[in-house]
Amino acid sequence: MRIDILSAVPNLLDSFFNNSILKRAQDKGIAELYVHDLRDYTLNKHRKVDDYPYGGEGGMVMSVEPIDRAITYLKSQRDYDHVIYTSPDGKVFNQKLANTLSLSGNIIILCGHYKGIDHRIREHLITMEISIGDFVMTGGELAAAVITDSIIRLLPGAISDECSALSDSFQDDLLSHPIYTRPAEYKGWKVPEVLLGGDHEAVSKWQEQQALERTKKLRPDLLE
Amino acid sequence: MRIDILSAVPNLLDSFFNNSILKRAQDKGIAELYVHDLRDYTLNKHRKVDDYPYGGEGGMVMSVEPIDRAITYLKSQRDYDHVIYTSPDGKVFNQKLANTLSLSGNIIILCGHYKGIDHRIREHLITMEISIGDFVMTGGELAAAVITDSIIRLLPGAISDECSALSDSFQDDLLSHPIYTRPAEYKGWKVPEVLLGGDHEAVSKWQEQQALERTKKLRPDLLE
Repeated sequence: MRIDILSAVPNLLDSFFNNSILKRAQDKGIAELYVHDLRDYTLNKHRKVDDYPYGGEGGMVMSVEPIDRAITYLKSQRDYDHVIYTSPDGKVFNQKLANTLSLSGNIIILCGHYKGIDHRIREHLITMEISIGDFVMTGGELAAAVITDSIIRLLPGAISDECSALSDSFQDDLLSHPIYTRPAEYKGWKVPEVLLGGDHEAVSKWQEQQALERTKKLRPDLLE
Repeated sequence: MRIDILSAVPNLLDSFFNNSILKRAQDKGIAELYVHDLRDYTLNKHRKVDDYPYGGEGGMVMSVEPIDRAITYLKSQRDYDHVIYTSPDGKVFNQKLANTLSLSGNIIILCGHYKGIDHRIREHLITMEISIGDFVMTGGELAAAVITDSIIRLLPGAISDECSALSDSFQDDLLSHPIYTRPAEYKGWKVPEVLLGGDHEAVSKWQEQQALERTKKLRPDLLE
């Protein structure tokens, strides 16, 4: 799988892509990740990627030309399944969408920044808009990182223990049960007795019951 | 405002905190941001922050001791309004919660990693759990970055144009209207006529109408 991220502030993403599972996935050849600087696709001498909005509001708007040139260039090199823009208007990102996207071949993710992007880009170049939630961030870079991380960790071999990904929250529409590690007692805070015995069946039953109870209490909507 | 982030992989956050508005907010003295390495709070010689879970599942669990020691140390230095853990079980993060948190004095955000954290930490040390959405990521670092960015940009002076933050999506429960910048025509794609005239009243009316129409079409739930 290949993900191309287009950004006006590509340095923002350096530490994410050079650490943790994203680095491991790249080293193992499971995923190719590229962050492109939109300034490399400008034609003006100051490498400007934004301009004032029509209509006289505050803030700056990302121009159509560098984005169009970047996307057109990438598409001339290979086929892409999706050209994604991260926007509060988009389809809400969830585990099902992460699962679906993890089956893609190549994806472009365009990060908005400043006040937003020229609407013509959304009309003519973007094939899917994704929102990671009802809140505003400075730019789409973090949203792109969130989407990339969620997708890449689902690829076989990306995390060391595949069982681990499958038993995560949401994969079965249940929250995770409580987990504990050593010591069995810390400052008087104790690990539940059932986990300390060796009765695997009792442990499984307790875990299922806890997952269901926590979901009922905290996120009843997941059970509907 | 001060935010202390506790992480087992603090390097993940480097590029994010050294760029963009988070750097500017720190340089201007509007916000203090610290990322603490949980390994600095371990007592074992390998600086291990995780261990195998009780109950025999896959994955590793973050131990209670280093986290307790880090939080206890920070609390001995100053008062904190919230000790936040980012978890799929938590309160869903949205713009209202970002607004509320931006009024805090000091906040701790604990990033989960690996399979999760020892549940006793959540019972005894955490005061608020926040979920940024129904999807699983490798760790809580990206979630902490998302929360930090959303909060910090609301602080007066953090972004260059305060009007700009107030006219963002969600602040009035409407999606943003379409925005455009030069050129007025690109590859035959045109900016709406109304924006090119100088009639400010007509522009405002068009923008309000577009915001309402887009919200009705894409996110009717926001209007309820």
